[in-house]
Amino acid sequence: MNRILHEPVDASRVPRFAGRSTFMRLPAVDSAAGLDVALAGIPWDGGTTNRAGARHGPREVRNQSSLMRRGHHVTGTIPYELISVADLGDIEVQPIDLLAALAQIEAGIAAICAEGALPLSVGGDHLTTLPVLRAIHKADPSRGPLGLVQFDAHSDTNDTYFGNNPYTHGTPFRRAIEEGILDPKRIVQIGIRGSVYAADEHGWAHDQGIRIIYIEEFDRLGPAGVMAEVHRIMGDTPCYVTFDIDGIDPSMAPGTGTPEIGGFTTREAQAMLRGLAGLNIVGADVVEVSPPFDAGGITALTGATVLFELLCVIAAGIAARG
Amino acid sequence: MNRILHEPVDASRVPRFAGRSTFMRLPAVDSAAGLDVALAGIPWDGGTTNRAGARHGPREVRNQSSLMRRGHHVTGTIPYELISVADLGDIEVQPIDLLAALAQIEAGIAAICAEGALPLSVGGDHLTTLPVLRAIHKADPSRGPLGLVQFDAHSDTNDTYFGNNPYTHGTPFRRAIEEGILDPKRIVQIGIRGSVYAADEHGWAHDQGIRIIYIEEFDRLGPAGVMAEVHRIMGDTPCYVTFDIDGIDPSMAPGTGTPEIGGFTTREAQAMLRGLAGLNIVGADVVEVSPPFDAGGITALTGATVLFELLCVIAAGIAARG
Amino acid sequence: MNRILHEPVDASRVPRFAGRSTFMRLPAVDSAAGLDVALAGIPWDGGTTNRAGARHGPREVRNQSSLMRRGHHVTGTIPYELISVADLGDIEVQPIDLLAALAQIEAGIAAICAEGALPLSVGGDHLTTLPVLRAIHKADPSRGPLGLVQFDAHSDTNDTYFGNNPYTHGTPFRRAIEEGILDPKRIVQIGIRGSVYAADEHGWAHDQGIRIIYIEEFDRLGPAGVMAEVHRIMGDTPCYVTFDIDGIDPSMAPGTGTPEIGGFTTREAQAMLRGLAGLNIVGADVVEVSPPFDAGGITALTGATVLFELLCVIAAGIAARG
Amino acid sequence: MNRILHEPVDASRVPRFAGRSTFMRLPAVDSAAGLDVALAGIPWDGGTTNRAGARHGPREVRNQSSLMRRGHHVTGTIPYELISVADLGDIEVQPIDLLAALAQIEAGIAAICAEGALPLSVGGDHLTTLPVLRAIHKADPSRGPLGLVQFDAHSDTNDTYFGNNPYTHGTPFRRAIEEGILDPKRIVQIGIRGSVYAADEHGWAHDQGIRIIYIEEFDRLGPAGVMAEVHRIMGDTPCYVTFDIDGIDPSMAPGTGTPEIGGFTTREAQAMLRGLAGLNIVGADVVEVSPPFDAGGITALTGATVLFELLCVIAAGIAARG
Amino acid sequence: MNRILHEPVDASRVPRFAGRSTFMRLPAVDSAAGLDVALAGIPWDGGTTNRAGARHGPREVRNQSSLMRRGHHVTGTIPYELISVADLGDIEVQPIDLLAALAQIEAGIAAICAEGALPLSVGGDHLTTLPVLRAIHKADPSRGPLGLVQFDAHSDTNDTYFGNNPYTHGTPFRRAIEEGILDPKRIVQIGIRGSVYAADEHGWAHDQGIRIIYIEEFDRLGPAGVMAEVHRIMGDTPCYVTFDIDGIDPSMAPGTGTPEIGGFTTREAQAMLRGLAGLNIVGADVVEVSPPFDAGGITALTGATVLFELLCVIAAGIAARG
Amino acid sequence: MNRILHEPVDASRVPRFAGRSTFMRLPAVDSAAGLDVALAGIPWDGGTTNRAGARHGPREVRNQSSLMRRGHHVTGTIPYELISVADLGDIEVQPIDLLAALAQIEAGIAAICAEGALPLSVGGDHLTTLPVLRAIHKADPSRGPLGLVQFDAHSDTNDTYFGNNPYTHGTPFRRAIEEGILDPKRIVQIGIRGSVYAADEHGWAHDQGIRIIYIEEFDRLGPAGVMAEVHRIMGDTPCYVTFDIDGIDPSMAPGTGTPEIGGFTTREAQAMLRGLAGLNIVGADVVEVSPPFDAGGITALTGATVLFELLCVIAAGIAARG
Repeated sequence: MNRILHEPVDASRVPRFAGRSTFMRLPAVDSAAGLDVALAGIPWDGGTTNRAGARHGPREVRNQSSLMRRGHHVTGTIPYELISVADLGDIEVQPIDLLAALAQIEAGIAAICAEGALPLSVGGDHLTTLPVLRAIHKADPSRGPLGLVQFDAHSDTNDTYFGNNPYTHGTPFRRAIEEGILDPKRIVQIGIRGSVYAADEHGWAHDQGIRIIYIEEFDRLGPAGVMAEVHRIMGDTPCYVTFDIDGIDPSMAPGTGTPEIGGFTTREAQAMLRGLAGLNIVGADVVEVSPPFDAGGITALTGATVLFELLCVIAAGIAARG
Repeated sequence: MNRILHEPVDASRVPRFAGRSTFMRLPAVDSAAGLDVALAGIPWDGGTTNRAGARHGPREVRNQSSLMRRGHHVTGTIPYELISVADLGDIEVQPIDLLAALAQIEAGIAAICAEGALPLSVGGDHLTTLPVLRAIHKADPSRGPLGLVQFDAHSDTNDTYFGNNPYTHGTPFRRAIEEGILDPKRIVQIGIRGSVYAADEHGWAHDQGIRIIYIEEFDRLGPAGVMAEVHRIMGDTPCYVTFDIDGIDPSMAPGTGTPEIGGFTTREAQAMLRGLAGLNIVGADVVEVSPPFDAGGITALTGATVLFELLCVIAAGIAARG
Repeated sequence: MNRILHEPVDASRVPRFAGRSTFMRLPAVDSAAGLDVALAGIPWDGGTTNRAGARHGPREVRNQSSLMRRGHHVTGTIPYELISVADLGDIEVQPIDLLAALAQIEAGIAAICAEGALPLSVGGDHLTTLPVLRAIHKADPSRGPLGLVQFDAHSDTNDTYFGNNPYTHGTPFRRAIEEGILDPKRIVQIGIRGSVYAADEHGWAHDQGIRIIYIEEFDRLGPAGVMAEVHRIMGDTPCYVTFDIDGIDPSMAPGTGTPEIGGFTTREAQAMLRGLAGLNIVGADVVEVSPPFDAGGITALTGATVLFELLCVIAAGIAARG
Repeated sequence: MNRILHEPVDASRVPRFAGRSTFMRLPAVDSAAGLDVALAGIPWDGGTTNRAGARHGPREVRNQSSLMRRGHHVTGTIPYELISVADLGDIEVQPIDLLAALAQIEAGIAAICAEGALPLSVGGDHLTTLPVLRAIHKADPSRGPLGLVQFDAHSDTNDTYFGNNPYTHGTPFRRAIEEGILDPKRIVQIGIRGSVYAADEHGWAHDQGIRIIYIEEFDRLGPAGVMAEVHRIMGDTPCYVTFDIDGIDPSMAPGTGTPEIGGFTTREAQAMLRGLAGLNIVGADVVEVSPPFDAGGITALTGATVLFELLCVIAAGIAARG
Repeated sequence: MNRILHEPVDASRVPRFAGRSTFMRLPAVDSAAGLDVALAGIPWDGGTTNRAGARHGPREVRNQSSLMRRGHHVTGTIPYELISVADLGDIEVQPIDLLAALAQIEAGIAAICAEGALPLSVGGDHLTTLPVLRAIHKADPSRGPLGLVQFDAHSDTNDTYFGNNPYTHGTPFRRAIEEGILDPKRIVQIGIRGSVYAADEHGWAHDQGIRIIYIEEFDRLGPAGVMAEVHRIMGDTPCYVTFDIDGIDPSMAPGTGTPEIGGFTTREAQAMLRGLAGLNIVGADVVEVSPPFDAGGITALTGATVLFELLCVIAAGIAARG
Repeated sequence: MNRILHEPVDASRVPRFAGRSTFMRLPAVDSAAGLDVALAGIPWDGGTTNRAGARHGPREVRNQSSLMRRGHHVTGTIPYELISVADLGDIEVQPIDLLAALAQIEAGIAAICAEGALPLSVGGDHLTTLPVLRAIHKADPSRGPLGLVQFDAHSDTNDTYFGNNPYTHGTPFRRAIEEGILDPKRIVQIGIRGSVYAADEHGWAHDQGIRIIYIEEFDRLGPAGVMAEVHRIMGDTPCYVTFDIDGIDPSMAPGTGTPEIGGFTTREAQAMLRGLAGLNIVGADVVEVSPPFDAGGITALTGATVLFELLCVIAAGIAARG
């Protein structure tokens, strides 16, 4: 199929506060057909155990993404010249029935995969990543379990909450491992911190072989050291990148449901995101941007910039692999 | 059983911003035993179809209720001299599993009823009223279906949302009627307004015999006329009072999930609440206070004052009936 | 041409916080062809003499308009069943060159008129109404000067500001009268108040025959009396309706550039808007919603509801006139 | 002495957001010499029993007063053409030592009185009115005890707080009566409401002969009826006007320390303020504007407009009396 | 006496936004009897020379502390398994009479010490630390003057303010040295910065032998170097730890009365707090959290996390010393 | 002419929240006569392409500058003992006519230069720097083109916007180079980052010889390395210092029109500002502080502190050069 190279609305012609609010000011499309990368929102936070609000994330990340210009000032990448990418809108998902919602999200992502496009989504809480991974995995089971690069304050590998609820935003990666979607030995979690429920909180994760880089180790390794570790573990195997905005320090991303002080900075985050170059990325997301708890849109702006960094590295990867 | 008359912490000794945060600065108790009225929070908003946040309502209404003094400046009622009332804390309820949550809320209220106390709760979204009504009804089925005085911008008698979901904050009173808990001919809804899904949006409600007083009729009747209508319909039959904070104009109660401009004012609300005197009230609540969307705590303050008005009229009623 | 009846996205299927942000959740279209009414944003505030920000009005009014449902609860009007209406996006206009901006706005509205659609726009500051009026007038000069129903705290008939600047948001209606676009004897200004520059501040306006209904007279006449006066003056002649959000009390519309306390309420505003029924309306707008000065989106919500009221009365008028 | 008629900076030349921030954009002066009315700030809230912040009132009321224009749109009064008025700056007062602060405030006001100027001040909490009254009374004891027109949610005639503290913002008028400064039979309190400490909360006040017009009576009498009562009681005797911003409904004045819902509106307040015309006013103030609890400056704007209304009625009075 | 090991409410059973708001969700107790550590609030800011608001600190730190889980992710410490700790509520203290307030605070802390519990308090402004130190010192004068580890932007060793006021939040440590409570040679101040009143601003402090580590020296030494210096000076002598939240950069702790840009980060703060391990701590506090100036609760969250870090290091110390 | 050494109001006598709001609490003067340095506001943002609001910058920077004390805690500089400096108020400039505004700003600065004073101004958007540079250049053309030290996220050397508009806040330094006011080989831009319009976005700037230090190079060099580079390039030649607040990370300066995440910190900024010592500075400014987008005044506080740092280094320079 012919790829059409979509362009953002030009801000030197139409001001940034004007025009339709889409991701990166790209055209709004109704199908992923012909796209290399489909930008999609997942406005759902039914897995949230504490403060809800990430359901409003896609709208505000779209709004703030109007501040993004066309190209990357460090790598020189202009994604719109390399790949076909557009705003597919929001996955249709309702806030009342949790299991039905997971199915809706999976169906929405499956439709993207069916068109051969790579899903780059904006949550929603972190439980949304589970159905996204299910859809990507099912789209090509021959790839086997995926690797995962996870920027986050929390491991999200707990078992259950509030009795026996297996599905919350604190459990997605345990479920994905159990379901054979993720290879725990190719999971790297970066920025983990904060008080814990129990001394062996991460015992299960460690037992599975997950590589947890706590913020204290991050402090010693620096962004370059951390990304070297990521490349060592991931190599060229297919992997998914998930960026929980609460990995970043709450002074730079206050609008999130479970903030933990002492996180990495945006400067450090950007250095790491650029270090993803060369990985075999099959999908990515930015999650847990919660506008009702934001201050002046700064978290949504941070989320939009992370999204742009991911788009650039993915576009360069697609272009490089032909 | 011996009733103990609990007293709020005295603000001329301990400043209002100090001390434990409980409803009306009353003692925190762990059981409703010995209470005439049990103040309880229901921190749950799983039935919300739009903007969540009412789960944080009880905490902030408690905080703002520290501005309440002991007595009512118009009626002279000092509830703490008439009845035994205390803060029972929050009903234990989790945010993930909707049906389980409804059962938890019902169980919490049932425990209050079992002690012979009247439940006066603070939500939570309006779906919380359904399990509250179930518990009250089951506690004494001999009373038959209950009457309902509902202050609200919305009728909340829709059938289903998002496919076939029967339980959302837009459906509680339809369910309660279907379950035989409420007598539709003794339901008065006051302040209804806002755009509608369909021309016959309230057709079912009208067919059941619900008395809907739209804001335009309210404007003509005035608070006194409206309350005369309430007394005409309710007489001395047992009734429940539910106060959705979005009945009040959003300038005075912006912190709510589904605001509708053009509501009644707090002055009008207070006049109506005082007009409840003489009704046979078996329980009451204040719902839909959503702190993440509030401005400077004004909605929680309004909610706390409505709670105080309800407490005064209920206390006077209990005292009058002996 | 065949009119297509566009429908808003159904909120009982897709939640209000989800999906593309368009006026009333209507489809986004790129041309007014086939529309009866074109909803358009005018994101420009270059005429603002004090606090800017109305340039952000269209985006936030779109966001809040997702709270609107399909029909009007009082009149029963469902505009989407009567007329073809959609979201045309924003008029292309830049913030740097004032005179060029006025030309851009006029061109954008002219394109709507050329398709036979009625422009219903969201500003932007009040100077945007001048080029809108120019375009409507030029589209059919045979109608002669237009009447004007203006809801506002200010008369906006000053002569010049800051030396000899003839174009600011305090001067549009003086210019429009001078240009023969408006018939001053068919201008009614409702809600005027606030301190004045000079004792004869409104001398010129009075001399022209403008009917100024100050808030004090409004208080005496009430919404019904005021609208009777409007009908008396306007009759069946073609008129434009402009709603400056600062006409409403700043407690209900704080997000505006020049707030004046003591305004009319939203309940009063809604009563007046419904009283427009029967007028020969050739265009309308809502202006001066300034999100940077808003509190929790309440002003944008008020603006969106005013827009819906205008849409309903215009749709009913079009349907009635055939 | 020669009176110089000071003029505000012209906003059609210098924008409202520009230039020095003074009351009404009037010149800053260092002495009251030659002034008829001295505008002064009293940045002190050491008498506050709950939420502090009124210390920041003068600065923000100055900022928002830049929205005031020269003349009154109803009465036509342009105070700057009638009297000499300027911004004297803030009374020097420190926040640590309460008794010393009361002395500082009294000294500052005494200096104004010594120059023959009428003090029109902006607080500060309501305890600041006590030293102001002391100074005015001492400046001319021959006038005998003063009358008081008090717009307020609270009577402020309590005896002591927190043990035996006689000086808080809940006690000033009891002290002033005890000190012979105020004549209780010529005190009118308007808008009183809210829960009370005791059933006989206002017993002392009533015993003294204070005329308390609760908000419920206000609702019946209306602004005109209330002001008729004020004139009946006050006649031509010298009186002081104190406007506690919490008299106004908290939706219109949220930025205050002890908000009470159900207050009078700004439209009603303005009607009453205009009804002060003809009284023999010897001083006035606006108190309890607390910017840290404000929302977007609306309370400070309300305070600034009340100040302007007071200035107009005082200027007209001075001009009328020659 | 038997120590009872209190446990926080389990957040995997009761959500974090639910239940009573106590420090760390621990039980509320009315006496320090049987406790190793007593958590207490000191809601008082009468020593504040600029922006008040720290009186509201305890309530909001309690609210945000509900985000803390049971254990420390780096040290593995679970304080609730090592020591008996609970929430004693707020010290009773009134806002009007400064000297009486200092006595009230001292009495409240003395009661804790009398039970053999270590006081870990949350202010309140920094003057609250003076009466706390007085009480701790008096409880066991045999220990001699105490050492002090002070995290702060300001030295707080000024002499007087506003004339001769010796007691403000800028003077507590000068007073404590003069009173023989602190040994100036064992005082380390970390993070000091900001403009100064005079070139010799800290001359007195230096003369006393206080070790001031300005932020610039901190930048060179790093957290580890700074804490080495603390251990060198303090050794095993009894010391008090006071954490003024304004030591942290205002981007991470904006809610404070006297912010100074250029502070240390939360990551650096946490590294230092963990470096307190091994010190002989006899009490500690977190002060100057001022909710009215906070943004979205981030300062209170930072304060709550600092409190948790202090609790962990103190608990481990108590356990180690037996 | 005799220099008068002006002193700020003493905050140990008059609290910081009290008294007139001037830069650094210095006297307000009406002429630069006799001043070494004139502090002036430029309340204008007509060159803003995205979010306006910098017009409100001077007022809020004045407010927050009341937190500054007399001396610099690192260098010991007390500027008020070295030079004559005062607050000249705001340059008179209107918001409607862009070209006229540029002329007004130039005239205002020219008047300062004519008195032999150095202009230290607070914007306003970055286009204000162009007329400032014009005035300084014209005041002494014999100095030749000036050098420029620019702290900024953006190069601001674009050509045109929105068609052919040559004057926006994205173009001032291109214009200044074209006009021969700046020597591009002596321009250092520090902190540049963010997405770009085109791969060769900075091609023109590089071709001119501008030294762009992107944030990534800054990260490697550190503040000291960067300032060494500045001194190498600038030597003793006359230069202007312009500090766009968006150079600082948006967590520390959210109140700006075009935020870019990943900026330098305030600690790094202060280190660089102190490194300006020894340069031959002929003028300086702080721009793009936009209060409507600020959070709790933190950006204005940062701006005020940057202003103080600039004042100290300029005062020391003037004193050193005699």
